[in-house]
Amino acid sequence: MQDSSIKAITWEGDHIRILDQTKLPVQEVYLECRNIEDVACAIERLSVRGAPAIGVAAAMALAMECQKVNAGTPEELMPHLEQMSIRLMNTRPTAVNLKWALKKMMDKALNSRTSDVEALKDALKQEAIRIYHDDIKINMAIGGHGQAAVPQEATVITICNTGSLATGGYGTALGVIRTAVKNGKSVFVVSSETRPLMQGSRLTAWELQKDGIPFVLIADSMAGYYMKKKGADLVITGADRIAANGDSANKIGTYSLSVLAKEHNIPFYVAAPFSTIDMSVKSGEDIPIEERPSEEITSIAGKPVAPESVNVWNPAFDVVPNSYIAGIITEGGIIRQPFNENIKKAFDEKGEEINGKS
Amino acid sequence: MQDSSIKAITWEGDHIRILDQTKLPVQEVYLECRNIEDVACAIERLSVRGAPAIGVAAAMALAMECQKVNAGTPEELMPHLEQMSIRLMNTRPTAVNLKWALKKMMDKALNSRTSDVEALKDALKQEAIRIYHDDIKINMAIGGHGQAAVPQEATVITICNTGSLATGGYGTALGVIRTAVKNGKSVFVVSSETRPLMQGSRLTAWELQKDGIPFVLIADSMAGYYMKKKGADLVITGADRIAANGDSANKIGTYSLSVLAKEHNIPFYVAAPFSTIDMSVKSGEDIPIEERPSEEITSIAGKPVAPESVNVWNPAFDVVPNSYIAGIITEGGIIRQPFNENIKKAFDEKGEEINGKS
Repeated sequence: MQDSSIKAITWEGDHIRILDQTKLPVQEVYLECRNIEDVACAIERLSVRGAPAIGVAAAMALAMECQKVNAGTPEELMPHLEQMSIRLMNTRPTAVNLKWALKKMMDKALNSRTSDVEALKDALKQEAIRIYHDDIKINMAIGGHGQAAVPQEATVITICNTGSLATGGYGTALGVIRTAVKNGKSVFVVSSETRPLMQGSRLTAWELQKDGIPFVLIADSMAGYYMKKKGADLVITGADRIAANGDSANKIGTYSLSVLAKEHNIPFYVAAPFSTIDMSVKSGEDIPIEERPSEEITSIAGKPVAPESVNVWNPAFDVVPNSYIAGIITEGGIIRQPFNENIKKAFDEKGEEINGKS
Repeated sequence: MQDSSIKAITWEGDHIRILDQTKLPVQEVYLECRNIEDVACAIERLSVRGAPAIGVAAAMALAMECQKVNAGTPEELMPHLEQMSIRLMNTRPTAVNLKWALKKMMDKALNSRTSDVEALKDALKQEAIRIYHDDIKINMAIGGHGQAAVPQEATVITICNTGSLATGGYGTALGVIRTAVKNGKSVFVVSSETRPLMQGSRLTAWELQKDGIPFVLIADSMAGYYMKKKGADLVITGADRIAANGDSANKIGTYSLSVLAKEHNIPFYVAAPFSTIDMSVKSGEDIPIEERPSEEITSIAGKPVAPESVNVWNPAFDVVPNSYIAGIITEGGIIRQPFNENIKKAFDEKGEEINGKS
């Protein structure tokens, strides 16, 4: 029941080692990313994915690349950092953790009072590594709070991958499941395969199998019928961005899952760190949704599964309205309705402290 | 706007020509089925699929194979027919049209008053060909009645394939769309790809493209978000078996679609011939649901998309409760709620006549 063997991202000093998740579960291939462009491309092609994980990867990329910049002073380094930050920001639009992590790095640079550029570079390295370790700690805290919502014997439906692969380590929704199991609960997971890129079958099934947590793999279209025929106790998903009112963007298919959960009176939970909450966005309507290439729908593993040049709609995410959500599981506890009020409260009280901003 | 080019099944005298739908849309390969076993295997591996189409294929298989039986009298032929019928019946459990077509053939044999075995064989051949031609006529009638439910400008969501490939020709749900378009309506189709076997992307997209009907292809998990973001005017699906109370079994994912349609106040229609209605089955609870091999979920086109030996649930169908259905579009008209009463009425009034039983 340890997932310590899974290291999606590791800091290796002169490079960042990234497990190429596009190759899983068939091959465990690691990429040696040696510059910003390597990491940006790895994020774009989803070699590393999951909102918290891409935040960590971006922070590390900035920390790594800045070591090589030939700058005499912190002031000279700043424009370079800004440029790198812009490149990384442009990789993917929906997950706000990317923005959050880059802002954290830029704030560190801006607020550093040193006039020694090498000291600043070192501070940025330490900050990136801290973001990484904090993310694991935060996931553990999410797991601890969330497991309280999991019955002693529970069937939990989830979508996409929210485990060690999607985060610095341990996981958000999958972290809740892991903690419930560690606490002696009997948890059975229903993993929705997550078309088009099969993070449920390729990644979540792989993590659950490694951990020995019992599960069944289903196609996304089977979730409703599973709820009806076999029943489930709760749905727990991750999130890529949570608006100030609790509307939560997550992997495409999550909205359908939330409607189906409502229909079957199954509580629907979102598990995510505070860094996924974007207080600057009032509601889900304002969350930018990435649309990805049609080839993800029209071919699988290079094989065509549709006629050539068909018209495709391929949003990578959708938005679950706050009213469908039983609770948002954060490192500060489970936030419940009314979300507008309680997110603000939780954010004010816990966010600063836990995110280490204070 | 003609689909006459698509011939999924044709009677060729000494063999049945079946378009191998597992190879579409990449290749148009035709199978020459020369005996019962050829046809049974073609049904089992889904080279021919769709409830009406497998009924037609089974009837033709019986008619073809019986020509070769060395029997002196109709009485001597009967046990052979029964044996063949059992083999065909055992191919797939959910679609009742298979049972219906085989019963029609057996009834023909039993009620034939000839003592000439060759005359009986010829009568069976004529009956199979009539089932085939009737199916096309029935689909045209379904289209005529159903198109009335389609607004002048309409976005229609559908799942799986219900077109020429799924029937003798023309189609059920897709037949309704075809007729609406022929009648000058502006129809935009949303084709749900239909995991695991991609009948939506492989087959429906192929048919729609051939017909020049505008459409967009989505993953099944996107249907809910499509309804929410872009809106739709109706959902029309086919059916594999309809219980006496209107509960309708159809391709897995149809139940989820019906829940999503209800959530978004989109009318949900089922289009199917009377032969899909099984009056011997009171409710959806009693419809047998085929579970198919886990490989359909764990690999695609021979490529693994999940770790080895994972636990999989792979029902090929699910059941839409009657209360979610706005209407069942048959060749006799649109049957509306209360279904228990109105199906019985429609079946008594129209079923006999249209199915040519009288």
